[in-house]
Parts: sequence; C-alpha cells; structure tokens
Amino acid sequence: MRLIVPLQGVVQGRGGLFVGSLIPCCLFYFLQLYLKRRRSPPPPDPDSSTELPRTSSRSSRIGRVRVSSRAVPLAKPPDSPYYIGLERVKTDPYDPLTNRDGIIQLGLAESTLCFDLLQRWMSENLMDSLMLQSDGFDISSIAMYQPFEGLLELRVAFADFMSRIMGGNVSFDPSNMVITAGGTPAVEVLAFCLADHGNAFLIPSPYYPGFDRDIKFRTGVELIPVHCRSSDNFTLTVSALEQALNQARKRGSKVSGILFSNPSNPVGNILSRETLHAILSFAQEKNIHVISDEIFAGSVYGDKEFVSMAEVAAASGDFDKSRVHIIYGLSKDLSLPGFRAGVIYSFHEDVINAAKKLMRFSSMPVPVQRILISLLSDTRFIEEYMAAHRQRIRDKHFLFVEGLKQIGIPCAESGGGLYCWVDMSSLLTSYSEKGELDLFEKLLSVAKINATPGTACYCIEPGWFRCCFTALADEDISVLMERIKLLC
Amino acid sequence: MRLIVPLQGVVQGRGGLFVGSLIPCCLFYFLQLYLKRRRSPPPPDPDSSTELPRTSSRSSRIGRVRVSSRAVPLAKPPDSPYYIGLERVKTDPYDPLTNRDGIIQLGLAESTLCFDLLQRWMSENLMDSLMLQSDGFDISSIAMYQPFEGLLELRVAFADFMSRIMGGNVSFDPSNMVITAGGTPAVEVLAFCLADHGNAFLIPSPYYPGFDRDIKFRTGVELIPVHCRSSDNFTLTVSALEQALNQARKRGSKVSGILFSNPSNPVGNILSRETLHAILSFAQEKNIHVISDEIFAGSVYGDKEFVSMAEVAAASGDFDKSRVHIIYGLSKDLSLPGFRAGVIYSFHEDVINAAKKLMRFSSMPVPVQRILISLLSDTRFIEEYMAAHRQRIRDKHFLFVEGLKQIGIPCAESGGGLYCWVDMSSLLTSYSEKGELDLFEKLLSVAKINATPGTACYCIEPGWFRCCFTALADEDISVLMERIKLLC
Repeated sequence: MRLIVPLQGVVQGRGGLFVGSLIPCCLFYFLQLYLKRRRSPPPPDPDSSTELPRTSSRSSRIGRVRVSSRAVPLAKPPDSPYYIGLERVKTDPYDPLTNRDGIIQLGLAESTLCFDLLQRWMSENLMDSLMLQSDGFDISSIAMYQPFEGLLELRVAFADFMSRIMGGNVSFDPSNMVITAGGTPAVEVLAFCLADHGNAFLIPSPYYPGFDRDIKFRTGVELIPVHCRSSDNFTLTVSALEQALNQARKRGSKVSGILFSNPSNPVGNILSRETLHAILSFAQEKNIHVISDEIFAGSVYGDKEFVSMAEVAAASGDFDKSRVHIIYGLSKDLSLPGFRAGVIYSFHEDVINAAKKLMRFSSMPVPVQRILISLLSDTRFIEEYMAAHRQRIRDKHFLFVEGLKQIGIPCAESGGGLYCWVDMSSLLTSYSEKGELDLFEKLLSVAKINATPGTACYCIEPGWFRCCFTALADEDISVLMERIKLLC
Repeated sequence: MRLIVPLQGVVQGRGGLFVGSLIPCCLFYFLQLYLKRRRSPPPPDPDSSTELPRTSSRSSRIGRVRVSSRAVPLAKPPDSPYYIGLERVKTDPYDPLTNRDGIIQLGLAESTLCFDLLQRWMSENLMDSLMLQSDGFDISSIAMYQPFEGLLELRVAFADFMSRIMGGNVSFDPSNMVITAGGTPAVEVLAFCLADHGNAFLIPSPYYPGFDRDIKFRTGVELIPVHCRSSDNFTLTVSALEQALNQARKRGSKVSGILFSNPSNPVGNILSRETLHAILSFAQEKNIHVISDEIFAGSVYGDKEFVSMAEVAAASGDFDKSRVHIIYGLSKDLSLPGFRAGVIYSFHEDVINAAKKLMRFSSMPVPVQRILISLLSDTRFIEEYMAAHRQRIRDKHFLFVEGLKQIGIPCAESGGGLYCWVDMSSLLTSYSEKGELDLFEKLLSVAKINATPGTACYCIEPGWFRCCFTALADEDISVLMERIKLLC
C-alpha cells in the first residue's frame, strides 16, 4: 500500500495524467538502471556439481557439513544467567562434608525435604509396584509397547492425586489427560497445539526462565511478558493483560493464549479465585487459550488457598472450558524430577488427541508408570507425605526468610513454591540490569552462591533474585547467610 | 523481477523516455482506480472489542476456541493403513486362550522370543540395579535431576553394548552419544538438527511407515522416497540416490541428507560394507548428511555380516565423519520397547550439543537409567541373551517363511529384523494400490490378520506386506497359515 500512496492525489482528482505519469515513470526508470548495474552473472547450477569428478580434492573443498539453522543457536553455550549459573555449580558444587568452599545451589527448584519418606516408601514398596515379589511377575507387564499417552490406571491415579492435592474441590477426568515425560514436554506440546510458529502467548513476568527453552526451542511460539511490579507483589491483573494484548496486536503479533504459573514461579504468590475468574473471562472475551502451570500446586505453605483453573472453568457454565489447559507433574510436589513425570490436562478434545500422538516423542517408560501407579494410589502415604512436604517447606521458608531479614534483605510475600523472590537491590552498585548482573557474578565468584537474577526472569525492576531453598539443610542456611553478609 | 521485465527494452536503449513513462503510468493509474473501487470500510479494530460489554451473548458469538493449524491434522484419526491396522487390533486382539477369533497382530515389530531370559534377569537383578537390596540405597540416586542426555555410566554401558552387538569391530565414544526416550525421539531430534523446515531427506523405499510421523509431525522435514525394486531385492544403489537427488533439486527441494535403516525395515536386508562406503562417498560429494538407523543391528539372523556406518566412517580417513549419525535403541534388539530407550550417536559436535539441550523434552527417567546400566553391563547375560535372540529369530523366521512357501506365498530374502517382506501379489484381485488396500481390508476383516501393506511403506510394486513374526508362538503361526489359506 505504501508504494501507491504518492498517487492518491491523482486518483482522488487532485492531479492529472501528467503528474500521474511522471512520478512512476522516473521511479521505474531509475530502478531499472540501478538493477542493471547490480546485475551479477547467473549463479552456478547446484546440480552441475554432480558432473564434477569425484576426487578427494573436491571433497576437501566442500568443507564441513552444516547443521540446520535452527540447531545452530542450540549448539552454542547458554547465554541466560539462569543456565550459566547452573553450569557453574556443576564445576564446583558445595558439599558440607567434602567441599565447604563450593558454590551453594539456589538456582534449581528441587526439594530433598521429604526424601526420608520417599526412601522408606521405595524400600518397602518398589518391588511390589513392579510385581516382583509375587509369583505373578510377568516381564510383559513392563517390557512391551503401551499406549504413548500413559496407562489408564496411571491416568486414574494421577486424576485422584491431583484432585487430592488441590483441595478435593475439583475432579479430573482421566480421558482428558495425557502423561508426559516431565513437565517440560507438557509445556512444549501444549504450545505446539495451541499456537502456530510466530504466534505468541502473554505471560506475566517475572517468569520461570526455563519457559524460554521449553517453548521457543522447537515450537517457534513467542512469549510476550506482561510486566508485574513489586508495588503489588508482582500480582497479575486483567488490566495489565489487556494493555499487553493491545500493544501486541498493534505490533502485529497474533496472541493465542495466556500462560502463567500458579503458584507463580519465581515469586511464589497464589492467584485468587477472583483473579482466575477474571483471567478466564478475559480469555473468553478475546477468544484465546489459558494455560495454567500448576506444577507447584501441592507445594503451598501459606494461609492462602490454592485454586486450580480447572475448578474455576468447571464451576461456571458461562465459559467455554475447551480453552483451559493445565500443566502438572511430580518434579516439585512429589520431589521426583528424576522420574520425569508430567501431565497435560485439557478440556479440548483436539488438544488431547493431538497430544496423544505427540507423546511418541515424550512418553513415560512402563516400569516408571508401574511404580507411580502404586505410589499415587497409596493414599495413606500420599496424605502423610503431603502434610510433611507442606510443613517442612513452611519451616524452611521461615528460616530462610528470617535469615535474610536479619541481614537486611527482604523477600516478596509468598505462599507456594520451592523458592523465595529476594530483593537484593540494596546490594547493587548501580540500579540497573548491569548492576544486577554484576551482583549475580559477585554472588557466584565471591560469595559462591548461585541465585537466579531477575533479568533472566524478565523482571523490569533490578535487584530481585530467585533463591530455591528446599534442597538446603538448616546448617547450609547459616553458611549461606554468612556468605551473603560479606557482600553487604 | 517480473514486474519490471516489460521495461527492459527501455533500459537496454531500445525505447525512450516516452515509452518508459507511458507504460508504468497507465499501469499505476488503473491500479489506483481498481484499488479505490475495491476499498471497503475499515475493518473493526480487534482491540475495540475490549469496549464491548462482557455478556454471555458475546461469548456465544465467539464460538469454540481453535487449536493451532499444525495440531489440526494430528487431532484427526490416522489415515495410513499402518496405524489403521494397529488401531483395529486393539479392538479385537487375538489370544490363543481367550480370543481365538481375534485379529492376529503382524503389524508391530516387537519380540517376545526371549522374555524368559529377561524375566529371569529382572527377577534376579532389578532390585540390585536400583540398589534396593543393599543398605546403601539412597533415594537421591533415582529421584533428583540428572543431565538430560543420560548418566555417563549409562552412555559408557551403551557404547560397550553397541560395539558388542555390532561385531566388536567398531567402538563408540560416550561423549558423542545422547540417550533419548526411545528411538522415535532420536529420529526426530536428528531431523530437527540436520534439516530445516521444508528441507528433505532421501530415503530408500519401501520404508518404515512410522518415519512419516517421527519426522514430519513436528520438524517439517520432507521425505523423498528413493524407489527400490523387487528385481534386486529392494537393495539401495547409489545410482538410484543420484537420480532421486537430481530430480529433487530440479523440483527445488533442498536435500539435507540420506536416511536409511540397516538392517532395512520393512525388507530386512543388510547393506554391505561396499554399499555403505558408496553411500558415504556420495554424501560426501553432495555435502549432505547420512543418518543410519541401526535399531535392528542385533537382530541379524542370516549369514550376512552387519556393518555399522560408524565403522565405515571411522575406518576411512577420506571422509568428513561429522556427516554421519547413528540411531539406536533397545526396543528391538533387547525386546524392551516399554523402557523407551534410544540413542543418538553423532560425529558432529554441534549435533550432540544441540541434541543434549533438546533432551529436556525426551529424557529417560533415572530409575530406568539405573536398571539399564546394570543390564547392559552384565556382559555374561548380554552374550547369552544375544545368542538366544538371534537363534530364536532365525528359527521363527524359518517356520514363518516355510509356512508361507507351502501355501505359495514367497518372501523377500532377508537377514535381519523382526519381520518378513511378503509378496502377496498372487492374492490381489487387481495389481494396483487399490487391489493391495482391498487385500489389506480382507486380511483384517475376513482372515483377521493385521499386516502392513506396502503402500504404507511407499513401495511402488503392489502386493507386498510387512509381517512381524517375533511375537507369535509356533501354534499361532499354524493358525495364521490356515487363515491365509482361506484367501488363496
């Protein structure tokens, strides 16, 4: 359209044939001259190479074969401080007995708080779960092909478990569920199914830095941060969503959905029923999807009730539920990241059907399914475990936050998750992204602490760090505070 | 360029300013008039919808939210006879004791021939492999995050195992290896890393019908069949590759590599060292990749020696090894598809680095890694198992092929794999794809046999069927032959 704008005067009668001729004529004439000068000899026919002699000299001229352009960025070392920190810990991990000068890991959201309970359960039940103690053990029960989306018994067990940890007010239908090899492929497969390459999801920021890889690596879906602020404890609001959507649409982005974590990662706050309702109402109005990552749903330790988006969707007849999709997994709430257990729960039949087929790439091995069927169905153990899990996070959280408070470092209010969102802005030499990254490096190199800086989470206020505390012993927290003091 | 072609005469001096003015002037003038007439009132601003009242009537006007365009085909039922057959078996599976009239499964390449050995090993060693029988069991050894590409001990064990089953003449470097959740993601991740969306691989046909899903579903890489013929037992030749490559390039396809199975699937023939050398030489000359799927390498039962492409690449200093990539897994040779154990082996550093990162979507759970470390390291068991596995496939193959021969149905010559490539052209009512699909349907509905028709494998000669025989008991083969006789 731009090209013809100069001629609008002509068309609208405010010019004549002469003006209408001269302008395009000149433009075309000079364009031709320009193109003629630039014209280069025709490129060699790629097929002509087949007629060259097959000599080693030719081979050596060809050089090294190249990988795809999409693999090139993946082959490079990471540039996000989140991954840089994780890599650095591997080279020199802190150990209270063998490496007291090593780097303390606050970058990875994993919990060892209830390993005693898990150890007991596994010691007592693992053989039974694989049916190895009975005479009826049949190798075909673990060795053969099974449906990629997970055994029905496992989906039934997961549905019951999810309902249980989410307060029992919501039920999950196993036929709306697909089992995935961890939460990560669950996120990716949903992104693939809900948005096309180049489309976008709105995502409240600060957000979990792994989402960049989970979503962008392969699906080509963009993430548009909806900036939340410390002034209201980084809580998502519909007006912020509305503004971000309008801006995105003005830039020409096609927004396919809203993705958020609840409890939020990295802040740890819990979305209220009213906020969930408002988000769903907004998504309905804009006819976009809602993806609720509820992987920390059972790691809630505050007074605030956790409500699943599935419950809100099911409770109201006004909504088209098919736009609601839940991500879940056992890496956080059951402290089993090594088991690679994730779930896609969706009210959209097409999403479930497509995800089932995509599970050929991310299915869970049958032996692990058998173990998890037993574990999740052991309701007495699950009740005991969940109570301990919550209580122990609450205690550790208190210890961690109090420790920081005593050295003058505040944390955002939180009610869930295996981490705190820590305001270290008082330690910045300059209140900027650079200042934050300098502090990140100083924490790593001087204090020997790996904490994830806010910039990796797209936080717009410098100085915030995500600190995961559920793999720390109480003694480690004392060591940690001494180290941070050095920087104060 | 097309638009300015009419003005070339002007530029080349065979016209003048007048002609050069008049033509573009007229074109622009009429274009403006045309556009003005077509101009419609401005479309409603999508963002203005935010001002509409949020009523349920508006919601109901929006309708159901849509999935991505790439998920739409995945959400539909399968259209390949390969998957149709597999689905049909699920509804009515043959069982010699409980469902003698059910459909006999010849469509799935899985083996139960050595389940007695596996059952014994698992009963005796599974607890040890998870360290559950010793006092030193530590839940953190299976529960925590581990490198997505697989534990080093597992990669070492895999390297040794692969070398062993491939005749001991080739060694594998664990640092060139990535463990995947089955052979399927191994294929996909390689396709992603070696070719961009819209690029293509040459693939000798008939080929394994699952490749269509494994490769096309998500990576957008095309497969160009290189048709092989019964006259030379469907063996791949370099001249056929050359011809296919030239044709593809003429059509504008960018060919990034050659993908093939060795032993071939569905035919079961084994590529000679000379053919492998010629393929690699061809790939070197064209500067494309070579992907050798060797997932049946240990399921060789004939007299012909199996040679890995890794051996050929390593043996010759003339080649740029970095173009060679191997797919392996335990679903076939160790009869453990339920374990979802695959391997990418690549000489290209960038491919390994990129694949490691992509393993966040397809990593193997740690408990399964622990079991496999023990299993693959138990060399005495592995030797016993592999000898039995080969001998029992050979015996079953003989029984199956002889049975067919007696009712006048020949098979292609084969030396590996869990299947035969059966020439049922004598049973066709018409020598065409339609005739073949009619026979497929008749086999399913009348004889109650699910065999994969050649058309699903892109075979250009009608009447060939892939029949997997390694999950059949000897008695089942008799039942099968009686049923096929009905159609003769």
